Amino acid sequence: MPILRLLPKAEARAVRHGFPWVFANEVVLDRRTRAIAPGSFVRLEENDGRALGLVTVNPASKIIGRMMDRNPEAQIDQPWIAAKIAHALTLRAALYDTPHYRLVHAEADGLPGVVIDRFGDVAVIQPNAAWAEVQFDLIADALAEVTGVRSIIRNGSGRARALEGLPEVTEIARGAVDGPVPVPMNGATYMADVLGGQKTGLFFDQRPNHAFAATLAKGGSVLDVFAHVGGFSLAALAAGATDALAVDSSAPALALAEAGAKASGMADRFNTLQADAFDALQKLADEGRRFDAVICDPPAFAPNKPALDAGLRAYERVARGAAALVAPGGYLGLCSCSHAADLASFRNASARGIGRAGRRGVMLHTGFAGPDHPQLPQLAESGYLKAVFFRLD
Amino acid sequence: MPILRLLPKAEARAVRHGFPWVFANEVVLDRRTRAIAPGSFVRLEENDGRALGLVTVNPASKIIGRMMDRNPEAQIDQPWIAAKIAHALTLRAALYDTPHYRLVHAEADGLPGVVIDRFGDVAVIQPNAAWAEVQFDLIADALAEVTGVRSIIRNGSGRARALEGLPEVTEIARGAVDGPVPVPMNGATYMADVLGGQKTGLFFDQRPNHAFAATLAKGGSVLDVFAHVGGFSLAALAAGATDALAVDSSAPALALAEAGAKASGMADRFNTLQADAFDALQKLADEGRRFDAVICDPPAFAPNKPALDAGLRAYERVARGAAALVAPGGYLGLCSCSHAADLASFRNASARGIGRAGRRGVMLHTGFAGPDHPQLPQLAESGYLKAVFFRLD
Repeated sequence: MPILRLLPKAEARAVRHGFPWVFANEVVLDRRTRAIAPGSFVRLEENDGRALGLVTVNPASKIIGRMMDRNPEAQIDQPWIAAKIAHALTLRAALYDTPHYRLVHAEADGLPGVVIDRFGDVAVIQPNAAWAEVQFDLIADALAEVTGVRSIIRNGSGRARALEGLPEVTEIARGAVDGPVPVPMNGATYMADVLGGQKTGLFFDQRPNHAFAATLAKGGSVLDVFAHVGGFSLAALAAGATDALAVDSSAPALALAEAGAKASGMADRFNTLQADAFDALQKLADEGRRFDAVICDPPAFAPNKPALDAGLRAYERVARGAAALVAPGGYLGLCSCSHAADLASFRNASARGIGRAGRRGVMLHTGFAGPDHPQLPQLAESGYLKAVFFRLD
Repeated sequence: MPILRLLPKAEARAVRHGFPWVFANEVVLDRRTRAIAPGSFVRLEENDGRALGLVTVNPASKIIGRMMDRNPEAQIDQPWIAAKIAHALTLRAALYDTPHYRLVHAEADGLPGVVIDRFGDVAVIQPNAAWAEVQFDLIADALAEVTGVRSIIRNGSGRARALEGLPEVTEIARGAVDGPVPVPMNGATYMADVLGGQKTGLFFDQRPNHAFAATLAKGGSVLDVFAHVGGFSLAALAAGATDALAVDSSAPALALAEAGAKASGMADRFNTLQADAFDALQKLADEGRRFDAVICDPPAFAPNKPALDAGLRAYERVARGAAALVAPGGYLGLCSCSHAADLASFRNASARGIGRAGRRGVMLHTGFAGPDHPQLPQLAESGYLKAVFFRLD
């Protein structure tokens, strides 16, 4: 059995204190190690031979080892995987009334690199690490066993897989899916395109932020910029907003938003505008439009450190354009899903943008990804999602 | 009319960009300035004489000036104060179903140094700046006019007043109060001692964190350490926790918690333990007790920078003692109301404590003070309250 052996230097020992990853520059990289088949399970050892646990290895990734089990003798079989999923399920069952949530959030749920979103009887698995690609059937079987889901999508898209050297492939792995899946959330019904949509089809991570915005939007008009399938606007309408305008550059996303509004019985209060967000902000300003609540949930403008400065300028520009459209005494919600932009930087960029629009505001609330997206304390960077809510004068 | 004149140096000009305070070392401190009566309203001017607004002055405070109005000609009279309170009220009315909330949160609600908590027909005013002490009657009249509250307490206790050179005094300023005031919150009824309790009698700031903990605690047993009037435990019982034990060193606080449990019809599931929190954690561990959810909301262990290191060690000790009492798969909520401990430091101290208890955990949620505690973006330090929730293996 091959092993992964740490170099003598001490910095790698974070893994002893719960850090879940071993980087390629922390291990003895001999020919035998390089030859380990991606996705294999091997013992991780200190340089002196003491075992630290069982890791899965991908010599093609900078993250060469991911901790599977602190017990180096563990068997990664269907019961082992099923136990992790069952543990993850008890948390979600406590949190939510219906089975619609992120069921498995990778390392923090004990399944490294594996993301599973559940939409009732349908689940989408993102096998974003080599072991999950190899053991996909075991994971799918364990998932069906524990949850009873009938249809399972294998979603092999996204940046995480590219970093692991895994190919792009999305397919129905179990059962069947005919069209978008209705998802009840925050009093509205959303339509998730689990096969062709962005990521797994719906962003469960924003659920608590949708809910907070909806409380503020009650009784007023809402502008939802970068709306995707209507995350903020449908929740606001369900909470009692008078009307909502959803702006997105994607016609398919807006069609799903419209289908969601219809399924929620709110189509008469819902409008869409297919446009570039910055163009739309300018156009609405030129028309003199004002909204009681404006929310902007742009894509990651600063996905990595080199993009940080330009990303923060883009967030400032969004804030400036959006603040100009907020009615006096109204609300502004600004989101960032950029790993590289920390909360303070993002808040500051947002406050600068508000100031440049000639407005003053106070901060009401800061929200993060919902609790179905747990984080390991040792992976602080996984706190990617920030939502900051202001009230403007 | 006296004026407050900034020194020529540039650092003071933050006030131009929305910073609400002027420090004593930023102004021309001549005899005339020192002689300004505390609480007076005067023009703030750049060194060259350009007006920046109307400030209230307290020569006895390091914060010598607090911005009242960007218009230097503003009249600080009852209509001016009433307009600020009315603006603050529209936010709270949108957020909450019943009139129980922090109505005015000082600078962020446009009334520098003034805190007003509302308990239905009763309100508590904390006049924590000299102008509010001088103009207390105007504030109380404006408050009664806008909200219709019948009883008003003047609560002149706390550190903020000492820094302003104001005396300790708490009294009924309007109407009458006979005994604790019942406050509906998160499905429970709390008892607030608005005359003799801690701060204004209830901690509204923890409301969203109580709610989050309650969701986790549903169906399980709860330990509420530093319980005060039962903030976390009563919300948990209302959400369906099987039983709760509230620990506090204060007998009067626990008596209020018991009265709240009784008023909520949950007395049979509620127990109290009057003890030092650290002693209680040890005693419960010695008895082999375990709880499905443990929450600790200690006083500020690190109220200022010099106390930071000792404070973080105390937070770590709390986390260690509490983690040992969490059942497998259970939840741990840890709070800090320390200005000096930022979120990252507090999270790290908490994670270290959990590790020292021999446990591993993932972070589910980070919460702050509720949205009835708005913050000026320019006063980042007012984000004092942090609550971090973990699930332990």
